[in-house]
Amino acid sequence: MRVRNRPNAAEMLAAHPEIVISEPTKWRGKWKELFGNDQPIHIEIGMGKGQFITGMAKAHPEINYIGIEMQVSVVSIALDKVLEEPLPNLRLLHVDGSALTEYFSENEIDQIYLNFSDPWPKKRHEKRRLTYRTFLAVDEEILKPNGEIHFKTDNQGLFEYSLASFSQYGMRLKKVWLDLHQSDFEDNIMTEYEEKFSSRGQRIYRVEAQFVDKNK
Amino acid sequence: MRVRNRPNAAEMLAAHPEIVISEPTKWRGKWKELFGNDQPIHIEIGMGKGQFITGMAKAHPEINYIGIEMQVSVVSIALDKVLEEPLPNLRLLHVDGSALTEYFSENEIDQIYLNFSDPWPKKRHEKRRLTYRTFLAVDEEILKPNGEIHFKTDNQGLFEYSLASFSQYGMRLKKVWLDLHQSDFEDNIMTEYEEKFSSRGQRIYRVEAQFVDKNK
Repeated sequence: MRVRNRPNAAEMLAAHPEIVISEPTKWRGKWKELFGNDQPIHIEIGMGKGQFITGMAKAHPEINYIGIEMQVSVVSIALDKVLEEPLPNLRLLHVDGSALTEYFSENEIDQIYLNFSDPWPKKRHEKRRLTYRTFLAVDEEILKPNGEIHFKTDNQGLFEYSLASFSQYGMRLKKVWLDLHQSDFEDNIMTEYEEKFSSRGQRIYRVEAQFVDKNK
Repeated sequence: MRVRNRPNAAEMLAAHPEIVISEPTKWRGKWKELFGNDQPIHIEIGMGKGQFITGMAKAHPEINYIGIEMQVSVVSIALDKVLEEPLPNLRLLHVDGSALTEYFSENEIDQIYLNFSDPWPKKRHEKRRLTYRTFLAVDEEILKPNGEIHFKTDNQGLFEYSLASFSQYGMRLKKVWLDLHQSDFEDNIMTEYEEKFSSRGQRIYRVEAQFVDKNK
């Protein structure tokens, strides 16, 4: 996601450690303590400007959410949203999504959201796609057994690739949507990107993919 | 597939037992004998008027093909095509595709094609879809270990359903095409139905799904 650089973004984040967790490695294995309850924890890898994760946190107070984004200016825009309307079940992380095992212990997370991830269309960049098998291995490690990834994109090539990648990793596709906005899926919360591109007539693809229990 | 009834269709089929095999149960486990060689055997379940299977047989003389269709008038139209241009590696069967284990023994078939199968869109008709799990179990039985189903359709709902059904059966999706005619897939042979609907701008979906070795 490209946004204009915000010179004071890092300071903004540092000023709100109650929302943007400043030393996330310290909370590895202890996120339930941080939230102060036993609710399931869902994370979004690449939350962008935060419309999806704040919308989800508002709609589902019974679930705890963590939005992860590595671009500081982008996190600061998400922070603006949370400051406008504080949500006790939402935290933000300004970290690189590829090092998730540093921040979460095995089985700590209940569900992962990937929304409009960078498609990296060139074959030589396959390993950078967030649905490539090395990322799935990290996701599997931090997720509970039978944990799920819910993935949305408007990018046809990335969706074709990801269906095969999930499947070849051994995941089960629970349900597939090839035109989400024309479907009967009711609880969709749109990202900023999704609003823009679906309004131009782009199809939105969605899949719910589940890891098969690693202990079986 | 609906076609005009041909009053003499049954007689036409009976007049060409060298092409339309009249007692297929007798050849169960012996199809290689019938073809007189050791080539792999690919079958199409629901061949319709036969444009796909005759095109494949022409393009791949190193593979043996069996086209299966239960409507007699439709088989007779496919037979017309074969009579025009005889193909030593092609046979037709006028049987119901749901009883395949009567005609093929375990591991006898190398690959299965499903093209534009009836979508049966109503939920209560799910069990009639050729990608429903009971059909997949039959397909798995007659296919070699790691055998594949190659499936094309223009029906979005059936494709969404089938991706999940293959996956939940334990099959691996090797590759997925969400707009076959705009892709780099070069060896596509179109069915009659595919020509008609893709010319109207309908997207064609395709997937190659593989059974995971049952002996492992």
